[in-house]
Amino acid sequence: MKRLLLAFMAVLFLGNITALAKDQIDHLEPAFWWVGMKNPKLQLMVHGENISNLKPELNYDGVSIEKVSRVANPNYLFVDLLIDERAKAGEFDIIFKKGKKTAVSYKYQLLQREEGSAERIGFTPKDVMYLITPDRFANGNPDNDNVDGMPEQADRNDKSGRHGGDIEGIINHLDYISDMGFTSIWVNPVLENNQENFSYHGYSTTDYYKVDERFGSNEEYRNLAKEAKKLGIGLIMDMIVNHCGSEHWWMKDLPSKDWINFGGEFVRTSHKRTTVQDKYASKEDLKQFADGWFVKTMPDLNQRNEFMATYLIQNTIWWVEYADLQGIRMDTYPYPDADFMTEWTRRVMEEYPNFNIVGEEWSTNPAIVSYWQKGKVNHDGYVSYLPSLMDFPLQYAMVQALTKEETWGTGWIKLYEGLANDFLYADPGNLVIFPDNHDMERIFDQLGRDYELFKLAMAYTLTMRGIPQIYYGTEILVKSDFGGDHGMLRSDFPGGWEGDQINAFTGEGLSDQEKDAQAYMKKILNWRKDNEIIHEGKLMHYAPDFGIYSYFRFTDSGKVMVILNKNKEAVQMETGRYHEMLNGETSGKDVLSGKTYELNGSIEVPAQTALILEIN
Amino acid sequence: MKRLLLAFMAVLFLGNITALAKDQIDHLEPAFWWVGMKNPKLQLMVHGENISNLKPELNYDGVSIEKVSRVANPNYLFVDLLIDERAKAGEFDIIFKKGKKTAVSYKYQLLQREEGSAERIGFTPKDVMYLITPDRFANGNPDNDNVDGMPEQADRNDKSGRHGGDIEGIINHLDYISDMGFTSIWVNPVLENNQENFSYHGYSTTDYYKVDERFGSNEEYRNLAKEAKKLGIGLIMDMIVNHCGSEHWWMKDLPSKDWINFGGEFVRTSHKRTTVQDKYASKEDLKQFADGWFVKTMPDLNQRNEFMATYLIQNTIWWVEYADLQGIRMDTYPYPDADFMTEWTRRVMEEYPNFNIVGEEWSTNPAIVSYWQKGKVNHDGYVSYLPSLMDFPLQYAMVQALTKEETWGTGWIKLYEGLANDFLYADPGNLVIFPDNHDMERIFDQLGRDYELFKLAMAYTLTMRGIPQIYYGTEILVKSDFGGDHGMLRSDFPGGWEGDQINAFTGEGLSDQEKDAQAYMKKILNWRKDNEIIHEGKLMHYAPDFGIYSYFRFTDSGKVMVILNKNKEAVQMETGRYHEMLNGETSGKDVLSGKTYELNGSIEVPAQTALILEIN
Repeated sequence: MKRLLLAFMAVLFLGNITALAKDQIDHLEPAFWWVGMKNPKLQLMVHGENISNLKPELNYDGVSIEKVSRVANPNYLFVDLLIDERAKAGEFDIIFKKGKKTAVSYKYQLLQREEGSAERIGFTPKDVMYLITPDRFANGNPDNDNVDGMPEQADRNDKSGRHGGDIEGIINHLDYISDMGFTSIWVNPVLENNQENFSYHGYSTTDYYKVDERFGSNEEYRNLAKEAKKLGIGLIMDMIVNHCGSEHWWMKDLPSKDWINFGGEFVRTSHKRTTVQDKYASKEDLKQFADGWFVKTMPDLNQRNEFMATYLIQNTIWWVEYADLQGIRMDTYPYPDADFMTEWTRRVMEEYPNFNIVGEEWSTNPAIVSYWQKGKVNHDGYVSYLPSLMDFPLQYAMVQALTKEETWGTGWIKLYEGLANDFLYADPGNLVIFPDNHDMERIFDQLGRDYELFKLAMAYTLTMRGIPQIYYGTEILVKSDFGGDHGMLRSDFPGGWEGDQINAFTGEGLSDQEKDAQAYMKKILNWRKDNEIIHEGKLMHYAPDFGIYSYFRFTDSGKVMVILNKNKEAVQMETGRYHEMLNGETSGKDVLSGKTYELNGSIEVPAQTALILEIN
Repeated sequence: MKRLLLAFMAVLFLGNITALAKDQIDHLEPAFWWVGMKNPKLQLMVHGENISNLKPELNYDGVSIEKVSRVANPNYLFVDLLIDERAKAGEFDIIFKKGKKTAVSYKYQLLQREEGSAERIGFTPKDVMYLITPDRFANGNPDNDNVDGMPEQADRNDKSGRHGGDIEGIINHLDYISDMGFTSIWVNPVLENNQENFSYHGYSTTDYYKVDERFGSNEEYRNLAKEAKKLGIGLIMDMIVNHCGSEHWWMKDLPSKDWINFGGEFVRTSHKRTTVQDKYASKEDLKQFADGWFVKTMPDLNQRNEFMATYLIQNTIWWVEYADLQGIRMDTYPYPDADFMTEWTRRVMEEYPNFNIVGEEWSTNPAIVSYWQKGKVNHDGYVSYLPSLMDFPLQYAMVQALTKEETWGTGWIKLYEGLANDFLYADPGNLVIFPDNHDMERIFDQLGRDYELFKLAMAYTLTMRGIPQIYYGTEILVKSDFGGDHGMLRSDFPGGWEGDQINAFTGEGLSDQEKDAQAYMKKILNWRKDNEIIHEGKLMHYAPDFGIYSYFRFTDSGKVMVILNKNKEAVQMETGRYHEMLNGETSGKDVLSGKTYELNGSIEVPAQTALILEIN
């Protein structure tokens, strides 16, 4: 094992560059692989001037070349390997021959997998995710703020620019994240974005196999997973297969015209997502949606190209295996080719059957969101293997419920009726629920900066079915000051930069309310951490009445009753209607206040307060 | 046949009263039945003082008493008859015996069915329904405005009172309805509502087998169907099985405590309809919804009582058979017991396999509405036999689309995305679509009295998939002046009362705009009447752009292209994106203006106009 690890490190630091003649092979991806994968196939993409004139050969026990494919551009070769069960970890040369002469050779490595890799367990409702935008959380290594050869430099005064946050910054503050009670971190994309500007957000990949140097390195990203794991925290990678960045190396030398949608020409997506499900949509409109680009700097990948499809699937598996991921968050899930997404999820879940992947379908219509979840029987026969989705409909309903007054059709009823739509989902318990994320105004702003409503939102999110996700800084009431600028949604976490006047890690300089919010969430998060009733419990909710919404989580061994009072006054509430759930139980202890409430008559629910009553 | 018909008339006019001793049998329902029904069973409900002490007997070829049931109240007997294929139309005595002595006898009649009755074809997308509130359409017979023994009298000055409209009024104006181009009439409930007040709307039934005398008689109702049929117009009956009126005769002498929900005590429904589908709803909340009453004057029937269930099912079949109905509109569909509704629809559709029934589920959530439609595979295994539903989601979306400005998420996109939800329905083509109805503000008001928007709404409704329904008076821009009073939604049709200054039947006194609206609708309705493309055509719609929403209806033999321009300016529109549908066709003729449009480049769509282009 030690020897292997050493070899592995060599690959990482020396890379493939030393192993090949630079003028012949510019890229060979993936640069290394593993033995013992469920799928014995591996397709190498080889890029180099006129590489298609060469013929690859190799000689290694258990590894054979199954097929060599050439495409329109002679600078590409796609080499299909078969790595069967006889193959052992080790290295071998892939020799590229011109006639009988060796033109160039590449030392390829097959690594041993980490033990239990295939059986890894993805994030579950036991977890609460902390979502981090790495450029904006903490600057652990100011030396990597600017890197030679990368045009965009750090400038904290530029809302849309790079601020210098990095992976080391996250590693440095894992203790804070752990103490707060989070058990997963979803980190916004870290792969290279060597674009002229807006590179901080990470959604314009220019190298699918390389962490952006301004965030750190592949090794550091891997180390983040390792250090987090020690604290019981899993790493969730943010991935994008819909588009790359316009500065991706292949954009200068495309394998074929159909590598990018619309033949590489910029045509904007219509964002009309319902064209996927709609029985009446025209093919023209579907194409406009799925093949259209987000912006000119994000060329839209054509996953119907079989080599592109294989490239993206292997890349995903490479990162799961390499960085020991707990899960994946897939960006813009409905925008790539839908059949490809089926194949992508199928292949990833086949390698890791207990893994978890959450897709982003930003629709507030659960009929649309549920279409993508594994197990859903769809009208058009579409089959998905995606285990989880972001619950945008519930996020929207929660904000509507909290901000609109209680009437016949507004207020809590929106949340109650929204949750009732769960019958549309194959597995609502595996949805990721969230009060806000990196693409929307902070929840505190969405709630009109009403702190009492904020606490109700947090109590709801952390006790509801599903897997909660909290955006960094939400716990200290970070404000978005949106004004149309996404950069402001992702403001620097106070204390993440040396010299910050306010330090949310230590509490220094926080207002009393901000400290209270942090403590409030910490309390619920840490209580939730070991609470099987919240992790696994069933759910029964009661129709809202008099401004109060209430529900139970329950297992055979216990119950938690949540009462959310939106009123500006305390409410005397009869407990008779809860007889199915209380079933003779007469008292419950509030997790937050520690107070015991008698439940066999009526209880006084304090104004604008969440009660989380443990009943046993 | 003639002799039978005579006998039949006798039953109608003399009724069962002459045939029995009044002090012994107060009610026997249904009063007569038919031979040759698919279901050979018939259960008679017999009501009379201590009737349960008697034993019924009969002697008629093919008819036997299968079972006699007694309930808590000794004043009721339920007699199950078996009417097998040997039974011929005719009459026989049912003798009720006390020991060996005949206490009372009842002459029962079995009638011959009309030819083709079982195979009758219900309303289809070939039809357009005209919805009439009979008290407010036309007063054909002022003599029946007030009736002895019925407390509520006519008063046209009382918005919530009776205005005197009746069945004769409808019969008198069938020619108008026919000329306009309607092919069905849905008439709001006509059964006896002998209540103190609010009796005009008809939703508080006090006799399930008798038309309210102030509307006319059973015979007149039957005549309405007959006269309408001559003009190619079908009659759709408005039925209510959820509740009766508090003055129903059985309320004074209930068969059993469980005849009415909540043991006959008034408990208000929560109207929380999602409790039916919701996986997380408490039984308590479901009971509150389904068993709760609308108002104190509408006792909520318990259809879980087997005698009640049979009573209601037989009553429905009786009316279909008796009045030669084309269809049924079922009130408050989700409120009665859901399993009963399955049995009710199953039984009715078993008798009339080509019939149609539309249910009212007033939810704007298509996931909820679609749950009730026949063929839907539901999460909880619930099976429905209801062929059609009112498309409330589309009505709401249409108004949102027309009244909100065009932005990213508002305007036409609401209608486009709303229609995309059709994948939730088992049979969206059989939904009833409507711009307004008797329970909401008039569409002209909903559209801010914008006449151009009104025309767009009508063009949409009359060319979209489904079965359109238009509320009486909508064609002449009747206003609702709502102000919270339902009576004002159902204002008198001008010209329906002698001496009316304005007469919409003749056009006298109508404003130019009102006349124009009437002519506009008449034109589309009459064009639609024979248009197979609208009746049977498939649908393809295009994502709205620049304030224009467009779609095609199409069959193998032709196409109709509808272009709806909401802009206050004419728009030059490229036709290239329609290539799948145009498929080389280069011109279309507008049904409304008669103008021919060239479609092989760009066309100018006039401001705020609907183009309905026939392309062949």
